[in-house]
Amino acid sequence: MSEDTQKCTIIVFSGDMDKVFAAFIIATTAAAMGMETTMFFTFWGLKAIQKGNPTGTGLFGRMLGIMNRGGIDRLGPSKFNFGGIGRWMFKKMMRDQNVTSLPEMLQMAIDLDVKMLACLMSMDVMEITKDDLIDEVDDVVGAATMLSHAQESQIQYFI
Amino acid sequence: MSEDTQKCTIIVFSGDMDKVFAAFIIATTAAAMGMETTMFFTFWGLKAIQKGNPTGTGLFGRMLGIMNRGGIDRLGPSKFNFGGIGRWMFKKMMRDQNVTSLPEMLQMAIDLDVKMLACLMSMDVMEITKDDLIDEVDDVVGAATMLSHAQESQIQYFI
Amino acid sequence: MSEDTQKCTIIVFSGDMDKVFAAFIIATTAAAMGMETTMFFTFWGLKAIQKGNPTGTGLFGRMLGIMNRGGIDRLGPSKFNFGGIGRWMFKKMMRDQNVTSLPEMLQMAIDLDVKMLACLMSMDVMEITKDDLIDEVDDVVGAATMLSHAQESQIQYFI
Repeated sequence: MSEDTQKCTIIVFSGDMDKVFAAFIIATTAAAMGMETTMFFTFWGLKAIQKGNPTGTGLFGRMLGIMNRGGIDRLGPSKFNFGGIGRWMFKKMMRDQNVTSLPEMLQMAIDLDVKMLACLMSMDVMEITKDDLIDEVDDVVGAATMLSHAQESQIQYFI
Repeated sequence: MSEDTQKCTIIVFSGDMDKVFAAFIIATTAAAMGMETTMFFTFWGLKAIQKGNPTGTGLFGRMLGIMNRGGIDRLGPSKFNFGGIGRWMFKKMMRDQNVTSLPEMLQMAIDLDVKMLACLMSMDVMEITKDDLIDEVDDVVGAATMLSHAQESQIQYFI
Repeated sequence: MSEDTQKCTIIVFSGDMDKVFAAFIIATTAAAMGMETTMFFTFWGLKAIQKGNPTGTGLFGRMLGIMNRGGIDRLGPSKFNFGGIGRWMFKKMMRDQNVTSLPEMLQMAIDLDVKMLACLMSMDVMEITKDDLIDEVDDVVGAATMLSHAQESQIQYFI
């Protein structure tokens, strides 16, 4: 890409359906506008790029893997989840309006060459391995790599 | 405005009283400093620019309209709300310190020519119409329009 | 510092252990990369730079001081806290991975000359005084001072 290409770097910290959805809307729109776009998934946001298998090796890691099971289709909204009813309701309301679903948004981001980075440190703490992530993840990196993208980015959010 | 005018673009995603308050503090301060300021209200943040009437047409839209009723004076804090007591308590603590209330902050933003944009897609999903929004909303737009403001902005937050 | 020094300004609004941790990771990494880094603590984020003594003078201020007691070692995670068990569990998982603890991160930020600013208005509303904050806080300022840092910053987040 040329020197003048605009860049967009989004930190996806949240694992809430609505916030992850907002992150993907911004990322795919920025990529479609020609911006070089990077998503950095950290902490709860890792759920969006996990395959969805059980994770963890130690006692707490396995407990967390059950309570916080990954997979982009498992995310619940930050409000009104009511044990899964809210997730189902929002999915239905989105379908009724022909709004792209989260798994489709993820695929669209991949097709638009959005760079997918996973945070090494939070993977270590939460006992999530590279094998637990979807194959389309470009790299597992630290905060310094993410920041070197962000400091060249005209658009940058912590979501 | 001249080419050199600095810009500020804030995405208001949250509908929590404290976060919306922070968004308005930043927006009005930036505008008072001479920055061309835009607020983009999306998802729960739409509550801050709703008139407060019941919304929704389908079953789920009407349910959501009741559970998540709009109007800037109805917002509750993200913590310690306790069914409305927290909202009342924070309002009182703000009044005691002569801190501007949220409805006054909204009016101040309007008076300072802060541009108010509403997110088309989340309005569709949540079944909120242009008529449900306060008249001062400048436009209902998509993510691309918001991003074209943000990529020229020295200050940009996702709140 | 030279004209070309890159800057990083982080608004720490959240008082959740995981989000404050992310803020400190970003701040210390940016500072280690040579960026002039500022953290602006506001609302719940003030807990991270409070000494931890009881605060407040009026009835509500004292109540809030009890429910929301400060001190960086008292922060609980945004999810799965379960009355403190989650906090204990995350601390243990971080120790097991040799990840720096929050109090150590705070000390590291201070050692790296990260500028620590506290928000005047939220201190007033929550009845927190300068004496309730750790001595390393550089200044108590308003939003305009924070924004004047942020508008010169290549990296800026609202966390």
